[in-house]
Amino acid sequence: MQELVERIRREGVHAGGGIVKLDGFINHQVDASLTERMGDSFVRRFAPLLAEPPTRIVTAEVSGIPAALATARRYDVPMLYARKHRSSVMTDVYYFAQAKSRTKGEDINLMISRSYLGGNDRVIIIDDFLATGSTISALASLVEASGATLLGIGCVIEKPLEHGRERLSGLGVPIETLARVEVRDEAIHVY
Amino acid sequence: MQELVERIRREGVHAGGGIVKLDGFINHQVDASLTERMGDSFVRRFAPLLAEPPTRIVTAEVSGIPAALATARRYDVPMLYARKHRSSVMTDVYYFAQAKSRTKGEDINLMISRSYLGGNDRVIIIDDFLATGSTISALASLVEASGATLLGIGCVIEKPLEHGRERLSGLGVPIETLARVEVRDEAIHVY
Repeated sequence: MQELVERIRREGVHAGGGIVKLDGFINHQVDASLTERMGDSFVRRFAPLLAEPPTRIVTAEVSGIPAALATARRYDVPMLYARKHRSSVMTDVYYFAQAKSRTKGEDINLMISRSYLGGNDRVIIIDDFLATGSTISALASLVEASGATLLGIGCVIEKPLEHGRERLSGLGVPIETLARVEVRDEAIHVY
Repeated sequence: MQELVERIRREGVHAGGGIVKLDGFINHQVDASLTERMGDSFVRRFAPLLAEPPTRIVTAEVSGIPAALATARRYDVPMLYARKHRSSVMTDVYYFAQAKSRTKGEDINLMISRSYLGGNDRVIIIDDFLATGSTISALASLVEASGATLLGIGCVIEKPLEHGRERLSGLGVPIETLARVEVRDEAIHVY
């Protein structure tokens, strides 16, 4: 997605340790119309790859929500976000999985209510970053636990040097990413 | 918003203590097209009330994001969400404010980077619930700290029995809500 590649080149900031900060249009301030076009782009890319459309778009709170919502709107299906923090309102029964957060330096629990995902569902997972693949892998295990079928994975930005794509290859589903970012010698390479 | 009123009547669950759970279409699973219509509704309601359009839609993570994003898209301006959790990537200088979370039973810190909000901005705050007004009040103080002008407040659901509207009246801006929910004698009243 050329527009996204150029935006990252212009505004991406290397925050150290290979982490690229995109707070100006993805992770804190969100460009709403660019987000729409991300949704369009995912739908266009998945179109030739899928025999059937999804019934749910699944993501993890917080920063996967905008792109997942835009994609869900295009498919006209609900978007379901895995929660990370338990609250007193969470009285349902949940699927649980654990992921490692690089930016927060801790294990995170991901939870999806059993009420909203089941054996008849077909799921595309959408998230902002594909880095080590830890979050996506946890989301995929939630989908598997529900009995739903995983159709594909879409991430806004892939960081090939962190090998998430290899880690997820065992899932046997298409992985679509809209831009790739590598930090080498303190410089950000985007393509 | 009649569609929303009916949806809450059909799917809202009293989780105890006056808390109404709307996990099927707002707070966990999100109805993407209903969310779009919430954005439309806010824009329509604010149209006769504002002399100038906003330059930013501000919300708090997590559950305010969908409606805020839909509203931002209509106005064609960025959506900015206050973060609650510090991460190693947050190297900017931030405005801070504190709110009380009813559902999590603790104080939460809200943070907005100084890079994305300043004296030339005009802001509409959008959130999912207007209950005690604590989160909205904290967001308004972030907007004030930035020097931006607060134009209005929009919440998907108002809980009049928790008096948020009265608490926010000192801000002197229009407050628009799309549905009102009251729990009396264990029954949910929606209007």
